[in-house]
Amino acid sequence: MPARGRLIALEGGDGCGKSTHARLLADALGAVPTSEPGATVLGRALRGLVLDPSLPPVSPRAEALLLAADRAEHVAEVVGPALEAGQWVVTDRFSGSTLAYQGYGRGLPLVELRQLVDWATGGLEADLTVVIDVPVPEARARRTAKEADRLERLDAEFHERVRAGYLTLAAEGGDAWAVVDGTGTVDAVGRRVQAVVAERLGAPPVSSGRMGR
Amino acid sequence: MPARGRLIALEGGDGCGKSTHARLLADALGAVPTSEPGATVLGRALRGLVLDPSLPPVSPRAEALLLAADRAEHVAEVVGPALEAGQWVVTDRFSGSTLAYQGYGRGLPLVELRQLVDWATGGLEADLTVVIDVPVPEARARRTAKEADRLERLDAEFHERVRAGYLTLAAEGGDAWAVVDGTGTVDAVGRRVQAVVAERLGAPPVSSGRMGR
Repeated sequence: MPARGRLIALEGGDGCGKSTHARLLADALGAVPTSEPGATVLGRALRGLVLDPSLPPVSPRAEALLLAADRAEHVAEVVGPALEAGQWVVTDRFSGSTLAYQGYGRGLPLVELRQLVDWATGGLEADLTVVIDVPVPEARARRTAKEADRLERLDAEFHERVRAGYLTLAAEGGDAWAVVDGTGTVDAVGRRVQAVVAERLGAPPVSSGRMGR
Repeated sequence: MPARGRLIALEGGDGCGKSTHARLLADALGAVPTSEPGATVLGRALRGLVLDPSLPPVSPRAEALLLAADRAEHVAEVVGPALEAGQWVVTDRFSGSTLAYQGYGRGLPLVELRQLVDWATGGLEADLTVVIDVPVPEARARRTAKEADRLERLDAEFHERVRAGYLTLAAEGGDAWAVVDGTGTVDAVGRRVQAVVAERLGAPPVSSGRMGR
């Protein structure tokens, strides 16, 4: 039986570039690339419910529970089986997003959200969470080209709280969290991300390559 | 400001007649009739996701979280505002369903489900939960006429666990829970339901009538 793989989560505000860097990092490591919300059939339906700007707003607790349901299914179907098979996994968003968005952003109590997230994942935590930090005005400017979803449409103060939340979580998260400066070219940011992953987790074993891809 | 209304939940296995009796009881009391899952826009979408037999099965934790999300929205949009306005509310299913189906039925730990439900509702509990108890074979026979949804399609042993769960919850629930024999005519069962509600909660004040209906 192979050693359990490692789980790396890329986190950050909307427009920070984490989707791009999650893909690049997964390629560089030969890891399984995945994302939240929406990595499963259930998740894709929930993603539509949570992010569709044409639907009426849902209460903060319902929003947190929907995203937790997405995460529970993501862990059960995708992340857990890959880690058990010895593969490394790079996910674009994980539990940190709930703490940053529904906690620091929406104002739900962090201690309760930690319990919720812990229950949804069955206690699975990322081995390393990398926050790609970009000042809110710059992140916002990057996003003007595409249609904003419901969470992205929230005001600048919300996004400032989310950014501050990520920085606080990272400051309190010890070796399991890192912050990377997300300004500059994609190449430069990508090198920073890969450097912090190599420093904290080393390199994946050759056997963790992308089986079946 | 009116006194807070009362919340009455009708519970029981599929085919026990609680939807019929929730409607009859709400009419008799002049209470707001509602149900789970699916009393809100979000809830109707989630109901489809949880119960549609054509979708792939979801993990037990994701299922519990989806139903908790439905309940959170139900409390935020429907139940909470009605109670605050002094109205009595009769709901077809509430937190007891999570304990019976996802706990006794699916095998998730009850203590964790109680925390989840408590968080979803913000601590709101039914003033009285009435279990309409019908032996599983009889309930099953009543349901053959209509298409079964995903939870209803589960095997007889699952439904026996759910029934035993409801009876255990009621036995441990003190004055906030009651069991009514669900066999016999609709009139006979309806009289039993109304009798136990009157005994435990008395009659609603006249001002709790169906405002705006």
